[in-house]
Amino acid sequence: MLVANKYFPRTDFLPLKPWINPSMADYKAPVQEMSFVLNDLFDVQSLTTIPAFAEATPDLVDAVVQEAGKFAAEVIAPLNRQGDIQHSRAKDGAVTTPDGFKEAYSLFQQNGWTSLAQDPNYGGQGLPFTVHMAASEFWNSANMSFALCPMLSAGGMDVLMAHASQDLRDKFLPQLVSGEWTGTMNLTEPHAGSDLSSLKTKARPDGDHYLLKGQKIYITWGEHDMADNILHIVLAPLEDAPAGVKGLSLFLVPKYLVNEDGSLGDRNDLSVVSTEEKLGINGSPTCVMSFGENQGAVGYMIGEPGQGLACMFTLMNHARLEVGLEGVGLSERSYQDALDYAKQRVQGRDPESGASTTIIGHPDVQRMLMQMKSMTDAMRALCFDASLSHDLRSHAEDEQVKAYHSVKFALLTPIAKAWCTELVNEVTSLGIQIHGGMGFVEETGVAQHYRDARITAIYEGTTGIQANDLVGRKLVRDSGQGFAALMSEMRATLDDFSHDEQSKAQFAQHLDRLQVTADFILNNNSQSASFEGAVAVNFLMQMGYVCGAWYHLRSFMAADKSTGDAQFNQAKKLAARFYVAQVLPRASAHADAVEHGAGIGVELSEAAFV
Amino acid sequence: MLVANKYFPRTDFLPLKPWINPSMADYKAPVQEMSFVLNDLFDVQSLTTIPAFAEATPDLVDAVVQEAGKFAAEVIAPLNRQGDIQHSRAKDGAVTTPDGFKEAYSLFQQNGWTSLAQDPNYGGQGLPFTVHMAASEFWNSANMSFALCPMLSAGGMDVLMAHASQDLRDKFLPQLVSGEWTGTMNLTEPHAGSDLSSLKTKARPDGDHYLLKGQKIYITWGEHDMADNILHIVLAPLEDAPAGVKGLSLFLVPKYLVNEDGSLGDRNDLSVVSTEEKLGINGSPTCVMSFGENQGAVGYMIGEPGQGLACMFTLMNHARLEVGLEGVGLSERSYQDALDYAKQRVQGRDPESGASTTIIGHPDVQRMLMQMKSMTDAMRALCFDASLSHDLRSHAEDEQVKAYHSVKFALLTPIAKAWCTELVNEVTSLGIQIHGGMGFVEETGVAQHYRDARITAIYEGTTGIQANDLVGRKLVRDSGQGFAALMSEMRATLDDFSHDEQSKAQFAQHLDRLQVTADFILNNNSQSASFEGAVAVNFLMQMGYVCGAWYHLRSFMAADKSTGDAQFNQAKKLAARFYVAQVLPRASAHADAVEHGAGIGVELSEAAFV
Repeated sequence: MLVANKYFPRTDFLPLKPWINPSMADYKAPVQEMSFVLNDLFDVQSLTTIPAFAEATPDLVDAVVQEAGKFAAEVIAPLNRQGDIQHSRAKDGAVTTPDGFKEAYSLFQQNGWTSLAQDPNYGGQGLPFTVHMAASEFWNSANMSFALCPMLSAGGMDVLMAHASQDLRDKFLPQLVSGEWTGTMNLTEPHAGSDLSSLKTKARPDGDHYLLKGQKIYITWGEHDMADNILHIVLAPLEDAPAGVKGLSLFLVPKYLVNEDGSLGDRNDLSVVSTEEKLGINGSPTCVMSFGENQGAVGYMIGEPGQGLACMFTLMNHARLEVGLEGVGLSERSYQDALDYAKQRVQGRDPESGASTTIIGHPDVQRMLMQMKSMTDAMRALCFDASLSHDLRSHAEDEQVKAYHSVKFALLTPIAKAWCTELVNEVTSLGIQIHGGMGFVEETGVAQHYRDARITAIYEGTTGIQANDLVGRKLVRDSGQGFAALMSEMRATLDDFSHDEQSKAQFAQHLDRLQVTADFILNNNSQSASFEGAVAVNFLMQMGYVCGAWYHLRSFMAADKSTGDAQFNQAKKLAARFYVAQVLPRASAHADAVEHGAGIGVELSEAAFV
Repeated sequence: MLVANKYFPRTDFLPLKPWINPSMADYKAPVQEMSFVLNDLFDVQSLTTIPAFAEATPDLVDAVVQEAGKFAAEVIAPLNRQGDIQHSRAKDGAVTTPDGFKEAYSLFQQNGWTSLAQDPNYGGQGLPFTVHMAASEFWNSANMSFALCPMLSAGGMDVLMAHASQDLRDKFLPQLVSGEWTGTMNLTEPHAGSDLSSLKTKARPDGDHYLLKGQKIYITWGEHDMADNILHIVLAPLEDAPAGVKGLSLFLVPKYLVNEDGSLGDRNDLSVVSTEEKLGINGSPTCVMSFGENQGAVGYMIGEPGQGLACMFTLMNHARLEVGLEGVGLSERSYQDALDYAKQRVQGRDPESGASTTIIGHPDVQRMLMQMKSMTDAMRALCFDASLSHDLRSHAEDEQVKAYHSVKFALLTPIAKAWCTELVNEVTSLGIQIHGGMGFVEETGVAQHYRDARITAIYEGTTGIQANDLVGRKLVRDSGQGFAALMSEMRATLDDFSHDEQSKAQFAQHLDRLQVTADFILNNNSQSASFEGAVAVNFLMQMGYVCGAWYHLRSFMAADKSTGDAQFNQAKKLAARFYVAQVLPRASAHADAVEHGAGIGVELSEAAFV
């Protein structure tokens, strides 16, 4: 059932066009880095002991990663700048994608990139989610606007697999898995952003289906010309449902109805109204969608009435980790661009030799580059650790292992989503800074990464929402048990680590402090209903920085043990020491902000802002 | 000689045009805030004891600030979004500015806003620089692209006043002071950004003037249609000058030559080649300028041969403080927008009451708003303290006072420039975050602030360059004496402050730590030529955060003493406590990065980036 990836570079496809500036297409997938993360830092091949993943041998995984890297660099990356310039825009109910997107998606789909981690029963390749994540990082580095389309489709697949009836799955999943059709996620309405308790889009029963009426906004890839059909996953209450989130149901609303034989039928009563002019991700259409302007849009309920939000969370948890990964992807791309520039741009003199130098010879440029690199490494490790937990919580045979990783995944997801997306703003900003004035000029392409990055801390739940999830649901609600388990893992690493005294001492100190801060929250959160909200983001950031150090120490040990590329391993150790010395200290600033700042935080009200 | 400001709102000028979206024009100059800073936090009226400023009475200053606020809000702010959309673009050797800019500049000029702090001998109003800064903050909040034009003119005035011959001053200064003509600053060339030692633009003597040939890039307002003439201040070596920065001279190169009688003569041999497509400040043209494509551009030397860079620093020091102020202006604007939105947007439930609420009822939104506000307050205080030192170093009668403030100004300038411009990225990012998805949509206008802000940490010397200036020239070169004087001022505030125990204790701790970090640098900088560069930015950021707390404690005391608006004063105290509890802790993260991170910083080299 498992199908190895079929991508072979084709010379007859997508020749470089005059509008592609080759200098913008110089992304190189970090295959060596990925191999280190999958094989040295984490032990992804241990997944092969799970029967479902028995065929996911290291060789196969390496081949998939290699081919994904090629595809990202050769096919998707060259379209990134053009997508930013041309935009995907709605006109007369249709959306035209930038030049090359349609052809690139077609090849993407034909080569099976949409189905990597999907169920073989529906045409998927059955590989671990973690392998999909490796490829997905590359898509996001290459062209985040493009990558959003299959990312949302994958979310749709998850929802259908988990909650849809057998009939719905049989009818819609194979084409979604194969990428012939794509998926979207319809939650937001103009008056309701993060608060879904008052949605105005309504559904009413009509025979074996429902009819929906209403408007949804911020629908990424809500309409486009790259696939034959688009499956909208729509959150809406039934007309007579109780108010609030418990009245919400979930619906599958296809752009084209599908006949019994699987062929496309009538156009459904839904259409794109307009697309937003945005700060970034301009290659992707962000649509205002209208459902049921005439007779009502035909929709099929997924799951039970009133279970819509619970079902949607299946999609959102998936999407949250992938959005964290977008932060990794853009950071990596920005780092590569900055490093290339720093190696080429001659300016000033080397402080040691006094000789004319490229700017990589300047200590402050080295600092910025190492900050970018060490942050990106930490972010990547966090996302892949969460991803491994997802594979294990889903497929491990041992129920205890499943339960352990279910808790760990739940704990790491908001951190991966929020911490990585906060940091990507800083990393891409450093990418601009290293370019100096050239970074502010759009032609260079690095400003686009900064613009594209800015949405990631907003969509799929803002940083504030992730932090409330972390503190409220993942720390306080289970009385710190999941947190304690993670702390045990981190303490075990501390015990094992004897490779660098200063790094060990600093990590130990910040680990102790994290326990103090968590205890402070557990002991004080009942004092005020505002307490959690007042401290949550700072605590999340603290956790992110400490986890980052944890992964860096593990990376140091893995590099120390590795018999591979010596320079690569040496750089890994430098990055770890740099991170612990220069980045980790921020954790205590956030700890202070929680412990000393909770009082003033709770005291604030609208009156403070005159 | 002193002329009170003549601006009265005119009903016949610049009626709101259909292209002005009124919702984008809702900037309100923070006049109460400014009055607090000038009169309560600092004692700007003490300047009236200086003969030169005898007429700058509190009433006059207040009137000027009021009128500037009106002008900024009513005339300049409404053009901000349109400037971003239309851009100033070069075509056929001319630059067309966005609709309304020309008329607004004409009114700006006619009402004397260009001459506030200029020498009455050349038509200036002779007010303190600090009063000009108050107005300038408003211009930058209202429309930074627009504000850049008079900002660069003022730099040109400073250079001419300080270094040009009497003849040149008489011939060119009055029209520059009156704003009939504008000025520019021409340093950068394609191959030479921050490093000016290898400029290719050359000057050769030709009678009583020089002829220049070469190309300059990143020339802000290098060409436009708002003034009759443009005076380019151009840095270039004479043809036979020694290599390096010591060979550089400074030239005044007017767009139109000026006849003996002051009338405009021939067009000089210079022209705009193109304008850059940028991330932000799109209303302002960023020009590639070509000098001397035919016979050579006529230029007049300012100062002595080989003294060009020293002379240019007069302009650059001025400009650096004003760029720091741009950070303040954009932060203020972004804060106002976010606060308005937070008060209007209904979403979710108040955690205390459970009732439906505007988002300002959410603790994390309050945190973000207070972070924006308290950072903006700290940044503003830093810029105005530096500005007061500038007035005192320039005009105090007591030589000791002059000398003291000369050192203090030199110390504070790189911090004001770099710290404020780093923070404005964060503040404007929070402004987006508070808007949620709406913040990412350009229509809201808040994304523009984020884009506009990004240049400020780059031009007029990057953050890295400011930090090297701070550590190399201002700390190490004078063995920490200027730093010690500032520490004494801060310790005096600590001694006076007995208003809030927690804030006092935390400030004391961070003050002690700052001394430790400075000593660490003074004791270790000779170990490696890379040392200063490896620690400089973190030290600068640490100083910025500690200075910010210093101003907040002074602000707390001033508010405590004030008999004015009780709610305003209460909010000031809250902002101070919030800043100390939640923002100041970052200082120790930077201290750690210096003290624990210097080693790994020095160790880095190109090999670390594989």
